[in-house]
Amino acid sequence: MIMMRLGLQAQRVFHSFSRSLSGHSVSGVLQIQGFGALWKSPSAFQSLRPFSKMSLWPSNIHLQDYSEPNESWSPEMRQLYDQYIALCEVRTDGGEVKTGPWQKLPSYNRTLKHGIVAAQRPKTIDPRARLFTRNVEEKGAAFEYVVFMNDQERRCVCVFQSGHLLEGPPGYVHAGAVATMFSTVTTTLSMLFGRVLTANLNLNFRSPVPLGSVSLIHSAVDKVEGRKIFVTCRMTSIDESKLYTDATALFLSGKLGHVFGTKSV
Amino acid sequence: MIMMRLGLQAQRVFHSFSRSLSGHSVSGVLQIQGFGALWKSPSAFQSLRPFSKMSLWPSNIHLQDYSEPNESWSPEMRQLYDQYIALCEVRTDGGEVKTGPWQKLPSYNRTLKHGIVAAQRPKTIDPRARLFTRNVEEKGAAFEYVVFMNDQERRCVCVFQSGHLLEGPPGYVHAGAVATMFSTVTTTLSMLFGRVLTANLNLNFRSPVPLGSVSLIHSAVDKVEGRKIFVTCRMTSIDESKLYTDATALFLSGKLGHVFGTKSV
Repeated sequence: MIMMRLGLQAQRVFHSFSRSLSGHSVSGVLQIQGFGALWKSPSAFQSLRPFSKMSLWPSNIHLQDYSEPNESWSPEMRQLYDQYIALCEVRTDGGEVKTGPWQKLPSYNRTLKHGIVAAQRPKTIDPRARLFTRNVEEKGAAFEYVVFMNDQERRCVCVFQSGHLLEGPPGYVHAGAVATMFSTVTTTLSMLFGRVLTANLNLNFRSPVPLGSVSLIHSAVDKVEGRKIFVTCRMTSIDESKLYTDATALFLSGKLGHVFGTKSV
Repeated sequence: MIMMRLGLQAQRVFHSFSRSLSGHSVSGVLQIQGFGALWKSPSAFQSLRPFSKMSLWPSNIHLQDYSEPNESWSPEMRQLYDQYIALCEVRTDGGEVKTGPWQKLPSYNRTLKHGIVAAQRPKTIDPRARLFTRNVEEKGAAFEYVVFMNDQERRCVCVFQSGHLLEGPPGYVHAGAVATMFSTVTTTLSMLFGRVLTANLNLNFRSPVPLGSVSLIHSAVDKVEGRKIFVTCRMTSIDESKLYTDATALFLSGKLGHVFGTKSV
Protein backbone atom coordinates (compact mmCIF):
# COMPACT_ATOMS: atom_id res chain seq x y z
CA MET A 1 0.00 0.00 0.00
CA ILE A 2 3.07 2.15 -0.15
CA MET A 3 2.58 2.67 -3.86
CA MET A 4 0.24 5.62 -3.76
CA ARG A 5 2.07 7.17 -0.81
CA LEU A 6 5.06 7.58 -3.05
CA GLY A 7 2.86 8.85 -5.82
CA LEU A 8 1.24 11.41 -3.60
CA GLN A 9 4.55 12.57 -2.24
CA ALA A 10 5.79 13.03 -5.77
CA GLN A 11 2.68 14.89 -6.85
CA ARG A 12 2.71 17.02 -3.74
CA VAL A 13 6.19 18.18 -4.54
CA PHE A 14 5.12 18.88 -8.13
CA HIS A 15 2.44 21.22 -6.80
CA SER A 16 4.65 22.72 -4.14
CA PHE A 17 7.50 23.28 -6.54
CA SER A 18 5.14 24.79 -9.08
CA ARG A 19 4.04 27.32 -6.52
CA SER A 20 7.61 28.38 -6.08
CA LEU A 21 7.85 28.71 -9.84
CA SER A 22 4.68 30.73 -9.95
CA GLY A 23 5.89 33.35 -7.52
CA HIS A 24 5.77 31.68 -4.14
CA SER A 25 9.25 31.46 -2.70
CA VAL A 26 9.71 28.13 -1.07
CA SER A 27 12.71 26.10 -0.02
CA GLY A 28 12.82 22.67 -1.54
CA VAL A 29 13.25 21.05 1.82
CA LEU A 30 10.59 23.14 3.46
CA GLN A 31 8.26 22.16 0.66
CA ILE A 32 8.58 18.56 1.64
CA GLN A 33 8.63 18.81 5.40
CA GLY A 34 5.82 21.30 5.71
CA PHE A 35 3.75 20.72 2.67
CA GLY A 36 0.83 19.10 4.41
CA ALA A 37 0.29 22.33 6.30
CA LEU A 38 1.16 24.55 3.37
CA TRP A 39 -1.39 22.79 1.24
CA LYS A 40 -4.18 23.45 3.72
CA SER A 41 -3.08 27.05 4.01
CA PRO A 42 -1.67 28.50 0.80
CA SER A 43 -1.09 31.83 2.52
CA ALA A 44 1.52 30.11 4.64
CA PHE A 45 3.79 30.26 1.60
CA GLN A 46 4.23 33.96 2.17
CA SER A 47 6.11 33.35 5.40
CA LEU A 48 8.73 31.10 3.85
CA ARG A 49 12.23 32.14 2.88
CA PRO A 50 13.27 32.75 -0.74
CA PHE A 51 13.73 29.83 -3.12
CA SER A 52 17.26 28.56 -2.56
CA LYS A 53 19.83 26.12 -3.87
CA MET A 54 17.91 23.54 -1.85
CA SER A 55 15.50 23.22 -4.77
CA LEU A 56 14.26 19.69 -5.42
CA TRP A 57 15.04 19.94 -9.11
CA PRO A 58 18.38 20.01 -10.92
CA SER A 59 18.68 23.22 -12.92
CA ASN A 60 19.20 21.27 -16.15
CA ILE A 61 15.72 19.78 -16.02
CA HIS A 62 13.11 21.84 -17.85
CA LEU A 63 9.74 21.41 -16.19
CA GLN A 64 6.87 21.66 -18.63
CA ASP A 65 3.41 22.11 -17.15
CA TYR A 66 1.32 19.62 -19.11
CA SER A 67 -1.90 21.05 -17.70
CA GLU A 68 -1.50 24.27 -19.68
CA PRO A 69 -3.78 24.71 -22.73
CA ASN A 70 -2.37 23.53 -26.06
CA GLU A 71 -3.53 23.43 -29.68
CA SER A 72 -5.04 19.97 -29.24
CA TRP A 73 -7.65 21.21 -26.79
CA SER A 74 -11.18 21.37 -28.13
CA PRO A 75 -13.24 24.57 -27.68
CA GLU A 76 -15.19 22.82 -24.90
CA MET A 77 -11.97 21.91 -23.09
CA ARG A 78 -10.63 25.46 -23.33
CA GLN A 79 -13.95 27.00 -22.27
CA LEU A 80 -14.11 24.87 -19.11
CA TYR A 81 -10.46 25.67 -18.38
CA ASP A 82 -11.15 29.39 -18.69
CA GLN A 83 -14.22 29.11 -16.45
CA TYR A 84 -12.20 27.62 -13.59
CA ILE A 85 -9.17 29.83 -14.17
CA ALA A 86 -11.47 32.81 -13.64
CA LEU A 87 -12.26 31.42 -10.18
CA CYS A 88 -8.59 31.19 -9.20
CA GLU A 89 -8.29 34.90 -8.51
CA VAL A 90 -10.66 37.36 -6.86
CA ARG A 91 -10.48 41.14 -6.95
CA THR A 92 -11.29 42.95 -3.74
CA ASP A 93 -13.30 46.18 -3.55
CA GLY A 94 -9.98 47.96 -3.28
CA GLY A 95 -8.96 46.47 -6.62
CA GLU A 96 -6.48 44.10 -5.01
CA VAL A 97 -6.14 40.68 -6.61
CA LYS A 98 -6.13 37.76 -4.19
CA THR A 99 -6.16 33.99 -4.44
CA GLY A 100 -9.66 32.73 -5.22
CA PRO A 101 -11.46 29.61 -3.93
CA TRP A 102 -9.98 27.48 -6.73
CA GLN A 103 -6.37 26.74 -7.56
CA LYS A 104 -5.13 25.27 -10.82
CA LEU A 105 -2.61 22.50 -10.16
CA PRO A 106 0.30 22.12 -12.58
CA SER A 107 1.27 18.71 -13.90
CA TYR A 108 4.71 17.39 -14.85
CA ASN A 109 5.97 14.17 -16.38
CA ARG A 110 8.76 13.49 -13.91
CA THR A 111 8.81 12.33 -10.32
CA LEU A 112 10.79 13.20 -7.24
CA LYS A 113 13.60 10.87 -8.16
CA HIS A 114 14.84 13.44 -10.64
CA GLY A 115 15.36 15.77 -7.73
CA ILE A 116 16.25 15.35 -4.09
CA VAL A 117 15.49 11.65 -4.10
CA ALA A 118 17.73 11.12 -7.10
CA ALA A 119 20.64 12.39 -5.10
CA GLN A 120 19.88 10.04 -2.27
CA ARG A 121 18.82 6.97 -4.22
CA PRO A 122 20.78 7.00 -7.48
CA LYS A 123 20.31 3.29 -7.99
CA THR A 124 16.56 3.79 -8.38
CA ILE A 125 16.84 6.25 -11.23
CA ASP A 126 15.82 5.46 -14.80
CA PRO A 127 16.22 8.71 -16.74
CA ARG A 128 13.71 7.44 -19.30
CA ALA A 129 10.95 7.09 -16.71
CA ARG A 130 7.87 9.25 -17.22
CA LEU A 131 4.64 9.68 -15.31
CA PHE A 132 2.09 7.27 -16.79
CA THR A 133 -0.51 9.95 -17.48
CA ARG A 134 2.04 12.24 -19.17
CA ASN A 135 4.18 9.73 -21.07
CA VAL A 136 3.10 10.73 -24.58
CA GLU A 137 4.69 13.88 -26.01
CA GLU A 138 2.26 14.22 -28.92
CA LYS A 139 -0.28 16.82 -27.81
CA GLY A 140 -3.84 15.50 -27.63
CA ALA A 141 -2.89 11.90 -28.35
CA ALA A 142 -3.42 10.52 -24.85
CA PHE A 143 -4.42 12.17 -21.55
CA GLU A 144 -5.14 15.90 -21.74
CA TYR A 145 -6.33 17.06 -18.35
CA VAL A 146 -6.12 19.82 -15.78
CA VAL A 147 -7.08 19.65 -12.10
CA PHE A 148 -8.55 22.57 -10.16
CA MET A 149 -8.58 22.31 -6.37
CA ASN A 150 -10.95 23.92 -3.90
CA ASP A 151 -9.23 23.48 -0.54
CA GLN A 152 -11.97 25.01 1.59
CA GLU A 153 -14.72 22.85 0.12
CA ARG A 154 -12.38 19.82 0.15
CA ARG A 155 -13.15 18.99 -3.46
CA CYS A 156 -11.58 19.24 -6.89
CA VAL A 157 -12.63 19.08 -10.51
CA CYS A 158 -10.70 17.73 -13.47
CA VAL A 159 -11.36 18.65 -17.08
CA PHE A 160 -10.35 15.64 -19.16
CA GLN A 161 -10.03 15.23 -22.93
CA SER A 162 -9.26 11.71 -24.16
CA GLY A 163 -6.90 11.17 -27.07
CA HIS A 164 -6.92 8.53 -29.80
CA LEU A 165 -4.27 6.45 -28.00
CA LEU A 166 -6.64 5.72 -25.09
CA GLU A 167 -9.01 3.51 -27.02
CA GLY A 168 -10.56 0.38 -25.56
CA PRO A 169 -13.86 -0.48 -27.23
CA PRO A 170 -14.09 0.82 -30.80
CA GLY A 171 -14.66 4.55 -30.52
CA TYR A 172 -14.62 4.61 -26.71
CA VAL A 173 -12.10 5.18 -23.93
CA HIS A 174 -10.47 2.09 -22.38
CA ALA A 175 -11.81 1.27 -18.89
CA GLY A 176 -8.20 1.26 -17.67
CA ALA A 177 -7.72 4.81 -18.91
CA VAL A 178 -10.89 5.82 -17.08
CA ALA A 179 -9.61 4.10 -13.93
CA THR A 180 -6.30 5.91 -14.36
CA MET A 181 -8.01 9.29 -14.33
CA PHE A 182 -10.00 8.33 -11.22
CA SER A 183 -6.79 7.28 -9.48
CA THR A 184 -5.09 10.53 -10.46
CA VAL A 185 -7.92 12.83 -9.38
CA THR A 186 -8.78 11.14 -6.07
CA THR A 187 -5.11 10.90 -5.18
CA THR A 188 -4.60 14.59 -5.84
CA LEU A 189 -7.60 15.49 -3.69
CA SER A 190 -6.48 13.30 -0.80
CA MET A 191 -3.27 15.30 -0.55
CA LEU A 192 -5.29 17.90 1.30
CA PHE A 193 -4.56 15.78 4.33
CA GLY A 194 -0.84 15.52 3.83
CA ARG A 195 0.89 12.24 3.17
CA VAL A 196 -1.56 9.49 2.31
CA LEU A 197 -1.77 6.08 0.66
CA THR A 198 -4.52 4.50 -1.38
CA ALA A 199 -6.13 1.43 0.16
CA ASN A 200 -9.01 0.91 -2.25
CA LEU A 201 -10.49 2.12 -5.52
CA ASN A 202 -13.99 0.87 -6.35
CA LEU A 203 -15.27 1.74 -9.82
CA ASN A 204 -18.77 1.43 -11.26
CA PHE A 205 -18.87 1.70 -15.05
CA ARG A 206 -22.21 3.18 -16.13
CA SER A 207 -21.73 4.30 -19.71
CA PRO A 208 -18.89 4.36 -22.25
CA VAL A 209 -16.84 7.53 -22.73
CA PRO A 210 -16.65 8.56 -26.40
CA LEU A 211 -13.03 8.66 -27.59
CA GLY A 212 -11.90 12.24 -28.13
CA SER A 213 -14.64 13.73 -26.00
CA VAL A 214 -14.24 16.09 -23.05
CA SER A 215 -15.57 15.03 -19.67
CA LEU A 216 -15.71 16.42 -16.14
CA ILE A 217 -14.38 14.52 -13.14
CA HIS A 218 -15.65 15.79 -9.81
CA SER A 219 -14.15 14.45 -6.60
CA ALA A 220 -14.98 15.32 -3.00
CA VAL A 221 -13.96 14.24 0.48
CA ASP A 222 -16.89 12.30 1.90
CA LYS A 223 -15.65 11.89 5.47
CA VAL A 224 -12.54 11.51 7.59
CA GLU A 225 -12.30 8.95 10.38
CA GLY A 226 -8.95 8.96 12.11
CA ARG A 227 -6.39 7.96 9.50
CA LYS A 228 -9.09 7.00 7.00
CA ILE A 229 -10.03 9.45 4.26
CA PHE A 230 -13.13 8.53 2.23
CA VAL A 231 -13.33 10.11 -1.21
CA THR A 232 -16.06 10.00 -3.84
CA CYS A 233 -15.54 10.67 -7.54
CA ARG A 234 -17.65 10.76 -10.69
CA MET A 235 -17.00 11.27 -14.38
CA THR A 236 -19.74 12.88 -16.46
CA SER A 237 -20.35 14.62 -19.76
CA ILE A 238 -19.44 18.31 -19.66
CA ASP A 239 -23.05 19.31 -19.04
CA GLU A 240 -23.13 16.66 -16.27
CA SER A 241 -26.30 15.17 -17.78
CA LYS A 242 -24.66 11.81 -18.49
CA LEU A 243 -22.87 9.74 -15.84
CA TYR A 244 -20.01 7.73 -17.30
CA THR A 245 -18.43 6.22 -14.18
CA ASP A 246 -18.55 6.78 -10.44
CA ALA A 247 -16.23 5.48 -7.76
CA THR A 248 -15.22 5.58 -4.12
CA ALA A 249 -11.65 5.63 -2.90
CA LEU A 250 -10.18 5.04 0.53
CA PHE A 251 -6.90 6.63 1.54
CA LEU A 252 -4.89 6.23 4.73
CA SER A 253 -2.64 8.93 6.11
CA GLY A 254 0.94 7.87 6.68
CA LYS A 255 4.58 8.80 6.55
CA LEU A 256 6.98 8.40 3.64
CA GLY A 257 10.40 8.79 5.16
CA HIS A 258 11.13 5.09 5.45
CA VAL A 259 9.97 4.56 1.89
CA PHE A 260 12.19 7.23 0.39
CA GLY A 261 15.05 6.08 2.56
CA THR A 262 15.40 9.53 4.06
CA LYS A 263 13.74 11.32 6.95
CA SER A 264 13.78 14.59 5.07
CA VAL A 265 11.27 13.33 2.54
CA MET B 1 -22.05 -0.06 -19.02
CA ILE B 2 -21.81 -0.59 -22.72
CA MET B 3 -18.15 0.38 -22.65
CA MET B 4 -16.67 -2.97 -21.78
CA ARG B 5 -19.15 -4.82 -23.94
CA LEU B 6 -17.64 -3.11 -26.92
CA GLY B 7 -14.19 -3.81 -25.60
CA LEU B 8 -14.93 -7.45 -25.10
CA GLN B 9 -16.46 -7.75 -28.51
CA ALA B 10 -13.35 -6.20 -30.01
CA GLN B 11 -11.02 -8.44 -28.01
CA ARG B 12 -13.07 -11.50 -28.77
CA VAL B 13 -12.66 -10.85 -32.46
CA PHE B 14 -8.95 -10.30 -31.96
CA HIS B 15 -8.70 -13.76 -30.46
CA SER B 16 -11.07 -15.33 -32.95
CA PHE B 17 -9.31 -13.76 -35.89
CA SER B 18 -5.95 -14.80 -34.55
CA ARG B 19 -7.08 -18.39 -34.50
CA SER B 20 -7.96 -18.13 -38.16
CA LEU B 21 -4.51 -16.72 -38.76
CA SER B 22 -2.95 -19.53 -36.82
CA GLY B 23 -4.50 -22.23 -38.88
CA HIS B 24 -8.12 -22.32 -37.87
CA SER B 25 -10.29 -21.40 -40.82
CA VAL B 26 -13.05 -19.16 -39.68
CA SER B 27 -15.44 -16.84 -41.45
CA GLY B 28 -15.28 -13.30 -40.21
CA VAL B 29 -19.00 -13.17 -39.71
CA LEU B 30 -19.09 -16.54 -38.04
CA GLN B 31 -16.37 -15.35 -35.74
CA ILE B 32 -18.62 -12.65 -34.45
CA GLN B 33 -21.94 -14.41 -34.37
CA GLY B 34 -20.73 -17.66 -32.92
CA PHE B 35 -17.69 -16.78 -31.00
CA GLY B 36 -19.19 -17.26 -27.57
CA ALA B 37 -19.65 -20.91 -28.42
CA LEU B 38 -16.39 -21.20 -30.31
CA TRP B 39 -14.54 -19.85 -27.33
CA LYS B 40 -15.99 -22.47 -25.03
CA SER B 41 -15.15 -25.17 -27.53
CA PRO B 42 -12.03 -24.46 -29.58
CA SER B 43 -12.51 -27.70 -31.45
CA ALA B 44 -15.63 -26.17 -32.94
CA PHE B 45 -13.34 -24.19 -35.20
CA GLN B 46 -12.65 -27.33 -37.18
CA SER B 47 -16.25 -27.44 -38.41
CA LEU B 48 -16.22 -23.93 -39.83
CA ARG B 49 -15.75 -23.06 -43.46
CA PRO B 50 -12.50 -21.68 -44.88
CA PHE B 51 -11.45 -18.13 -44.17
CA SER B 52 -13.17 -16.01 -46.80
CA LYS B 53 -13.51 -12.48 -48.11
CA MET B 54 -15.82 -11.98 -45.18
CA SER B 55 -12.75 -11.43 -43.03
CA LEU B 56 -13.11 -8.67 -40.43
CA TRP B 57 -9.83 -7.11 -41.48
CA PRO B 58 -8.86 -5.25 -44.65
CA SER B 59 -5.96 -7.00 -46.33
CA ASN B 60 -3.81 -3.84 -46.19
CA ILE B 61 -3.72 -3.89 -42.39
CA HIS B 62 -0.76 -5.80 -40.99
CA LEU B 63 -1.71 -7.35 -37.69
CA GLN B 64 1.21 -7.61 -35.30
CA ASP B 65 0.77 -9.88 -32.31
CA TYR B 66 2.10 -7.75 -29.45
CA SER B 67 2.04 -10.71 -27.08
CA GLU B 68 4.92 -12.40 -28.89
CA PRO B 69 8.34 -12.30 -27.17
CA ASN B 70 10.63 -9.40 -28.11
CA GLU B 71 14.12 -8.21 -27.19
CA SER B 72 12.79 -6.07 -24.33
CA TRP B 73 11.59 -9.08 -22.38
CA SER B 74 13.64 -9.94 -19.33
CA PRO B 75 14.86 -13.53 -18.78
CA GLU B 76 12.13 -13.95 -16.13
CA MET B 77 9.45 -12.80 -18.57
CA ARG B 78 10.67 -15.15 -21.29
CA GLN B 79 11.01 -18.08 -18.89
CA LEU B 80 7.41 -17.73 -17.68
CA TYR B 81 6.23 -17.37 -21.30
CA ASP B 82 8.02 -20.58 -22.26
CA GLN B 83 6.57 -22.40 -19.26
CA TYR B 84 3.00 -21.65 -20.30
CA ILE B 85 3.66 -22.12 -24.02
CA ALA B 86 4.77 -25.65 -23.16
CA LEU B 87 1.30 -26.24 -21.68
CA CYS B 88 -0.47 -25.14 -24.86
CA GLU B 89 0.21 -28.41 -26.65
CA VAL B 90 0.12 -32.02 -25.46
CA ARG B 91 1.54 -35.05 -27.22
CA THR B 92 -0.52 -38.21 -27.09
CA ASP B 93 0.92 -41.71 -26.61
CA GLY B 94 0.59 -42.08 -30.36
CA GLY B 95 2.86 -39.08 -30.83
CA GLU B 96 -0.01 -36.87 -31.99
CA VAL B 97 0.13 -33.24 -30.93
CA LYS B 98 -3.13 -31.83 -29.59
CA THR B 99 -4.26 -28.59 -27.99
CA GLY B 100 -3.27 -28.47 -24.34
CA PRO B 101 -5.19 -27.10 -21.35
CA TRP B 102 -3.75 -23.61 -21.91
CA GLN B 103 -4.05 -21.32 -24.92
CA LYS B 104 -1.92 -18.28 -25.60
CA LEU B 105 -4.08 -15.35 -26.67
CA PRO B 106 -2.69 -12.94 -29.27
CA SER B 107 -2.94 -9.19 -28.76
CA TYR B 108 -3.32 -6.45 -31.36
CA ASN B 109 -3.36 -2.66 -31.21
CA ARG B 110 -6.45 -2.11 -33.34
CA THR B 111 -10.13 -2.63 -32.72
CA LEU B 112 -13.04 -3.93 -34.72
CA LYS B 113 -13.72 -0.58 -36.32
CA HIS B 114 -10.80 -1.18 -38.67
CA GLY B 115 -12.69 -4.13 -39.99
CA ILE B 116 -16.33 -4.98 -40.47
CA VAL B 117 -17.53 -2.21 -38.18
CA ALA B 118 -15.48 0.31 -40.13
CA ALA B 119 -17.49 -0.51 -43.21
CA GLN B 120 -20.73 -0.04 -41.36
CA ARG B 121 -19.85 2.96 -39.23
CA PRO B 122 -17.27 4.98 -41.19
CA LYS B 123 -18.02 8.11 -39.20
CA THR B 124 -16.69 6.50 -36.03
CA ILE B 125 -13.29 5.73 -37.45
CA ASP B 126 -10.13 7.53 -36.37
CA PRO B 127 -7.26 5.78 -38.22
CA ARG B 128 -4.86 6.98 -35.52
CA ALA B 129 -6.73 5.17 -32.75
CA ARG B 130 -4.82 2.47 -30.91
CA LEU B 131 -5.68 0.11 -28.08
CA PHE B 132 -4.67 1.81 -24.82
CA THR B 133 -2.49 -1.07 -23.63
CA ARG B 134 -0.69 -1.32 -26.99
CA ASN B 135 -0.35 2.33 -27.95
CA VAL B 136 3.43 2.60 -27.57
CA GLU B 137 5.52 1.16 -30.42
CA GLU B 138 8.81 1.23 -28.50
CA LYS B 139 9.29 -2.31 -27.23
CA GLY B 140 9.45 -2.60 -23.45
CA ALA B 141 8.57 1.04 -22.83
CA ALA B 142 5.01 0.51 -21.59
CA PHE B 143 2.85 -2.62 -21.23
CA GLU B 144 4.55 -5.90 -22.16
CA TYR B 145 2.15 -8.73 -21.41
CA VAL B 146 0.79 -12.03 -22.64
CA VAL B 147 -2.39 -13.79 -21.51
CA PHE B 148 -2.76 -17.57 -21.31
CA MET B 149 -6.27 -18.97 -20.99
CA ASN B 150 -7.39 -22.22 -19.39
CA ASP B 151 -10.97 -22.65 -20.61
CA GLN B 152 -11.75 -25.81 -18.68
CA GLU B 153 -10.59 -24.39 -15.34
CA ARG B 154 -12.23 -21.06 -16.17
CA ARG B 155 -9.11 -19.10 -15.30
CA CYS B 156 -6.27 -17.28 -17.00
CA VAL B 157 -2.82 -16.00 -16.16
CA CYS B 158 -1.06 -12.93 -17.49
CA VAL B 159 2.69 -12.41 -17.45
CA PHE B 160 3.25 -8.67 -17.21
CA GLN B 161 6.44 -6.62 -17.51
CA SER B 162 6.10 -2.91 -16.77
CA GLY B 163 8.03 -0.37 -18.82
CA HIS B 164 9.54 2.97 -17.81
CA LEU B 165 6.57 4.91 -19.25
CA LEU B 166 4.19 3.43 -16.66
CA GLU B 167 5.65 5.22 -13.68
CA GLY B 168 3.51 6.63 -10.89
CA PRO B 169 5.43 6.84 -7.62
CA PRO B 170 9.19 7.19 -8.13
CA GLY B 171 10.42 3.78 -9.17
CA TYR B 172 7.00 2.13 -9.04
CA VAL B 173 4.14 1.39 -11.44
CA HIS B 174 1.24 3.89 -11.54
CA ALA B 175 -1.92 2.61 -9.81
CA GLY B 176 -3.80 3.42 -13.00
CA ALA B 177 -1.49 1.17 -15.00
CA VAL B 178 -2.09 -1.60 -12.46
CA ALA B 179 -5.86 -1.05 -12.75
CA THR B 180 -5.52 -1.15 -16.53
CA MET B 181 -3.95 -4.60 -16.41
CA PHE B 182 -6.67 -5.84 -14.04
CA SER B 183 -9.33 -4.53 -16.41
CA THR B 184 -7.64 -6.20 -19.37
CA VAL B 185 -7.16 -9.59 -17.73
CA THR B 186 -10.58 -9.90 -16.06
CA THR B 187 -12.28 -8.73 -19.24
CA THR B 188 -10.45 -11.33 -21.30
CA LEU B 189 -11.41 -14.10 -18.87
CA SER B 190 -15.07 -13.10 -18.78
CA MET B 191 -15.26 -13.66 -22.54
CA LEU B 192 -15.54 -17.37 -21.73
CA PHE B 193 -19.23 -16.62 -21.33
CA GLY B 194 -19.72 -14.82 -24.59
CA ARG B 195 -20.65 -11.20 -24.83
CA VAL B 196 -20.36 -9.44 -21.49
CA LEU B 197 -20.07 -5.99 -19.97
CA THR B 198 -18.19 -4.81 -16.91
CA ALA B 199 -20.33 -3.52 -14.10
CA ASN B 200 -17.72 -3.10 -11.38
CA LEU B 201 -13.98 -3.26 -10.71
CA ASN B 202 -12.93 -3.15 -7.06
CA LEU B 203 -9.19 -2.88 -6.44
CA ASN B 204 -7.24 -3.28 -3.19
CA PHE B 205 -3.69 -1.95 -3.40
CA ARG B 206 -1.46 -3.92 -1.05
CA SER B 207 2.09 -3.17 -2.14
CA PRO B 208 3.79 -1.11 -4.86
CA VAL B 209 4.93 -2.79 -8.08
CA PRO B 210 8.61 -2.01 -8.86
CA LEU B 211 8.93 -0.29 -12.24
CA GLY B 212 10.48 -2.63 -14.79
CA SER B 213 9.69 -5.76 -12.83
CA VAL B 214 7.79 -8.81 -14.05
CA SER B 215 4.62 -9.86 -12.24
CA LEU B 216 1.98 -12.54 -12.53
CA ILE B 217 -1.73 -11.76 -12.79
CA HIS B 218 -4.00 -14.68 -12.00
CA SER B 219 -7.72 -14.38 -12.64
CA ALA B 220 -10.48 -16.92 -12.07
CA VAL B 221 -14.25 -17.13 -12.38
CA ASP B 222 -15.61 -17.18 -8.85
CA LYS B 223 -19.25 -17.90 -9.61
CA VAL B 224 -21.97 -17.34 -12.17
CA GLU B 225 -25.48 -16.32 -11.16
CA GLY B 226 -27.79 -15.82 -14.10
CA ARG B 227 -26.35 -12.97 -16.13
CA LYS B 228 -23.85 -12.11 -13.41
CA ILE B 229 -20.27 -13.32 -13.72
CA PHE B 230 -18.09 -12.82 -10.64
CA VAL B 231 -14.36 -12.75 -11.28
CA THR B 232 -11.42 -12.54 -8.90
CA CYS B 233 -7.94 -11.34 -9.83
CA ARG B 234 -4.60 -10.85 -8.11
CA MET B 235 -1.22 -9.47 -9.11
CA THR B 236 1.84 -10.94 -7.41
CA SER B 237 5.59 -11.21 -7.73
CA ILE B 238 6.67 -13.98 -10.13
CA ASP B 239 7.27 -16.40 -7.23
CA GLU B 240 3.82 -15.38 -5.91
CA SER B 241 5.32 -14.67 -2.50
CA LYS B 242 4.38 -10.98 -2.60
CA LEU B 243 0.83 -9.74 -3.21
CA TYR B 244 0.79 -6.40 -5.02
CA THR B 245 -2.93 -5.89 -5.67
CA ASP B 246 -6.08 -7.97 -5.61
CA ALA B 247 -9.49 -7.20 -7.03
CA THR B 248 -12.96 -8.44 -7.81
CA ALA B 249 -14.84 -7.70 -11.00
CA LEU B 250 -18.48 -8.13 -11.92
CA PHE B 251 -19.54 -8.69 -15.52
CA LEU B 252 -23.00 -8.97 -16.99
CA SER B 253 -23.77 -10.95 -20.11
CA GLY B 254 -25.51 -9.01 -22.85
CA LYS B 255 -25.86 -8.34 -26.54
CA LEU B 256 -23.93 -5.86 -28.65
CA GLY B 257 -25.94 -5.54 -31.81
CA HIS B 258 -27.69 -2.34 -30.83
CA VAL B 259 -24.38 -0.84 -29.79
CA PHE B 260 -22.60 -1.59 -33.04
CA GLY B 261 -25.65 -0.52 -34.99
CA THR B 262 -25.84 -3.86 -36.75
CA LYS B 263 -27.40 -7.21 -35.93
CA SER B 264 -24.51 -9.04 -37.50
CA VAL B 265 -22.11 -7.87 -34.81
